[in-house]
Amino acid sequence: MQNQTINANDVNTWHDTADVIILGYGIAGACAALEAKRAGADVLVVERASGGGGTSATSSGYFYLGGGTAVQKATGDEDDADNMFRFLATSTAAPDSDIVKRYCDGSVEHFDWLEAQGVPFERTAYREKTLSTLTTECLTSTGNEKVWPYRDIARPCPRGHRVAMAGDAAGGKAMEALLGQCASENIRTSCDSQAIALIVDAGRVVGVRVRQYDSIKDLKADKAVIIATGAFGNNPAMVAKYAPQMQGNTYPIGIPYNDGAGIELGISVGAATQAMQNVMPTASFYPPGQLLKGIVVNNRGKRFVAEDSYHGRTASFVMEQPEGKAWLILDAEIFAYPELEMFGHSLVDGWETVEQMEAGLKLPPGALQKTLTEYNRDAAAGEDRRFFKYKDWLKPLDKAPYAAFDISFQKSTYFFFTLGGLKVSARAEVLDANGTAIPGLLAAGACACTIPQDGKGYASGLSLGPASFFGRIAGQQAAQAARRD
Amino acid sequence: MQNQTINANDVNTWHDTADVIILGYGIAGACAALEAKRAGADVLVVERASGGGGTSATSSGYFYLGGGTAVQKATGDEDDADNMFRFLATSTAAPDSDIVKRYCDGSVEHFDWLEAQGVPFERTAYREKTLSTLTTECLTSTGNEKVWPYRDIARPCPRGHRVAMAGDAAGGKAMEALLGQCASENIRTSCDSQAIALIVDAGRVVGVRVRQYDSIKDLKADKAVIIATGAFGNNPAMVAKYAPQMQGNTYPIGIPYNDGAGIELGISVGAATQAMQNVMPTASFYPPGQLLKGIVVNNRGKRFVAEDSYHGRTASFVMEQPEGKAWLILDAEIFAYPELEMFGHSLVDGWETVEQMEAGLKLPPGALQKTLTEYNRDAAAGEDRRFFKYKDWLKPLDKAPYAAFDISFQKSTYFFFTLGGLKVSARAEVLDANGTAIPGLLAAGACACTIPQDGKGYASGLSLGPASFFGRIAGQQAAQAARRD
Repeated sequence: MQNQTINANDVNTWHDTADVIILGYGIAGACAALEAKRAGADVLVVERASGGGGTSATSSGYFYLGGGTAVQKATGDEDDADNMFRFLATSTAAPDSDIVKRYCDGSVEHFDWLEAQGVPFERTAYREKTLSTLTTECLTSTGNEKVWPYRDIARPCPRGHRVAMAGDAAGGKAMEALLGQCASENIRTSCDSQAIALIVDAGRVVGVRVRQYDSIKDLKADKAVIIATGAFGNNPAMVAKYAPQMQGNTYPIGIPYNDGAGIELGISVGAATQAMQNVMPTASFYPPGQLLKGIVVNNRGKRFVAEDSYHGRTASFVMEQPEGKAWLILDAEIFAYPELEMFGHSLVDGWETVEQMEAGLKLPPGALQKTLTEYNRDAAAGEDRRFFKYKDWLKPLDKAPYAAFDISFQKSTYFFFTLGGLKVSARAEVLDANGTAIPGLLAAGACACTIPQDGKGYASGLSLGPASFFGRIAGQQAAQAARRD
Repeated sequence: MQNQTINANDVNTWHDTADVIILGYGIAGACAALEAKRAGADVLVVERASGGGGTSATSSGYFYLGGGTAVQKATGDEDDADNMFRFLATSTAAPDSDIVKRYCDGSVEHFDWLEAQGVPFERTAYREKTLSTLTTECLTSTGNEKVWPYRDIARPCPRGHRVAMAGDAAGGKAMEALLGQCASENIRTSCDSQAIALIVDAGRVVGVRVRQYDSIKDLKADKAVIIATGAFGNNPAMVAKYAPQMQGNTYPIGIPYNDGAGIELGISVGAATQAMQNVMPTASFYPPGQLLKGIVVNNRGKRFVAEDSYHGRTASFVMEQPEGKAWLILDAEIFAYPELEMFGHSLVDGWETVEQMEAGLKLPPGALQKTLTEYNRDAAAGEDRRFFKYKDWLKPLDKAPYAAFDISFQKSTYFFFTLGGLKVSARAEVLDANGTAIPGLLAAGACACTIPQDGKGYASGLSLGPASFFGRIAGQQAAQAARRD
């Protein structure tokens, strides 16, 4: 899919005109629409599906927010914007400090705004370690805040704010509220419409060409076009090009429209991209949380990650190991099956001795014994002197029989979504390779690269959170943009 | 340069035989030779130059060591192996924890060993901020220990141990001592000899083919071959292939033999490589240290790095900025010319107001004013809330006139050396893509990738330090290897 741009002079008929045209009606698009409309702009949302929601509506419904939100205050979890900044500025691969700072400084206000739109959040917390909660409790730790070295850099604090809806896909509840708000404010939409090209005039984006059923329509944007489309995990060609490691037994998370179409549109007018090779992978071996007391080793019998890492971080490290191989090692005291069967972690076997386990896993002779000797000594002393796993998860693994689950990349099923996208400023401007904003073009949501940039630093809620936050900023910026005559 | 391997069956005559053959007589090779010989092995060193020394002999003579060395104790700089590990495990891009741990745990002993070989170190410290000292003082801070977030992760401690020799290239003094030791222990050498192929027998490295003047000779290694050659900065084709960012106005540091020949030899027998794209770049704007009180901004008028970072870290960040552009911004109170003229930092101009400076640098209107307003407010309050520059370097930049030095990549001259190399274990074994040791082959020194892995985490002394340390381990391992019949 190679996009051509259309020159405005070549447009015969403008089929419709708005101040602000928004491509994509997921959470970034909906938030952009609300803010642009409220700032007085005439808004038109172009959406490929027959209605709004996008991948956001299918998501787990976490917003990564902090700095002292109403929920954090209610649950007694002390946080402040500086503390949140210290965490995100170091856990993000190549942070733009303006983007991170703006997000942290605006986080409390953004939470209040979401609630004001009708997105429901309880004043409760969920304190267990899990992949994704299915209850209505709100605040939970969804990242690496307590993982070393982050806990030494910023005071750990839970920041995952889950929408109050029981069951999976609580993101749908958020979208229901936001789309309802859009409808009540008469946001115009053009559904079943795919943007196929940007229309430019002397270097400025002034509109978009869309295909709606069998018609081609040219839509004029007097102020700005906002790309608010999805990631590209469902575009095999783009995955093969940008993130070729995600082949084989891997499975993209999200809806089929996550095909990178908006990213390609941005590239067609000279946009730079960022972190296109990076994904958030997961093949979580927890819940249950007790499995974090096990150790994870590679095909050399060596540990390589703090096992209490967020599941995306652990999966990212597994993928870097020789042959992508890794096993979760347990003893009888903590043995349990990983709850989430979709990842296909298989029990290799049980063994009476570490020597037998080592042989059964075909590890180099003595390697696993050496690893366990050191780990058990450290665990008994209450400090993991190699990866600094948090003390709550430390216990000597010395109660036979032992067991191992194969959690290798390719052997287990790794789910993922892509994290790369258009390079943007903290004002949601789309930037070219020189760092210059492309006139008339803004972007937010999964098509843009803001705070989550790689699987090692990802936290649940870093998709909906920045998407909604910078979606709002895009809407505000677009409404303020100089009108094109 | 594509290396073919030679099958041992195709060797007609073995021109010489040793237990251990070492390729390269820089610091890794010399240390390997001493340890192998002392463990009872017959050692032959193959060196392309007419004598030993290599790039090590031309270096500044820093060893990055800690954990409580005799010098650290004498100067009152408290350190321990765990503290050193916490720093290196987080400042190294993709650390192998065995490698880092072994280095930290063995650092004190290694310092003593170096002294015992006659490498001289004073019990003194140099406390100013500089690129490279020219005096005999020993201990100095040569990395990012005090730079955030590292200072929150590990207690900052100086670990650069400089060889006691006045003037540049104190590494020569270290090599003089080590080569003298080698000579007194009758280490055999074959100088003016270039290794052109490894000789293999059923997957095991059993020798090396060398060219000496016009002769081709096949040398038999009964126990192991140790590759202890240099980096590849002086091989334009390899730089273009692996580190293409280092083109144009860049200049490799080191001797011409840094052409990656040893890395290619390793690759020819299936070795994996690591961090081949990474370099240690420098275009240091300090000394004088007072310039760290300035700020560095990109072409958007924004800061992007803590200005008190080690110069390699700062240069690495500059290279990532749009168009590689960056300026050092100073006010009248701290104005000085960067001392090191070789980098070619040019004074752009002086201006009476920030507005004029912004216009003079062609920055977006208001951008630099905004940056300085925030920075000056933070500096006055004693905390840089964006990059957490250490308080000693904070002062409001508000004394007109102002000045800016252009420190852009390509505009200034960036010197560099490459950091990528053969993937090795903590036992100096050369590893293949599966993490399996290639029988009969070890590596140490700049041709191998151990602790320094990128310019952001580099510290002076992380070349000689790990090269000498893992050189010793390679020698010990080689001497212990099973004899080939």
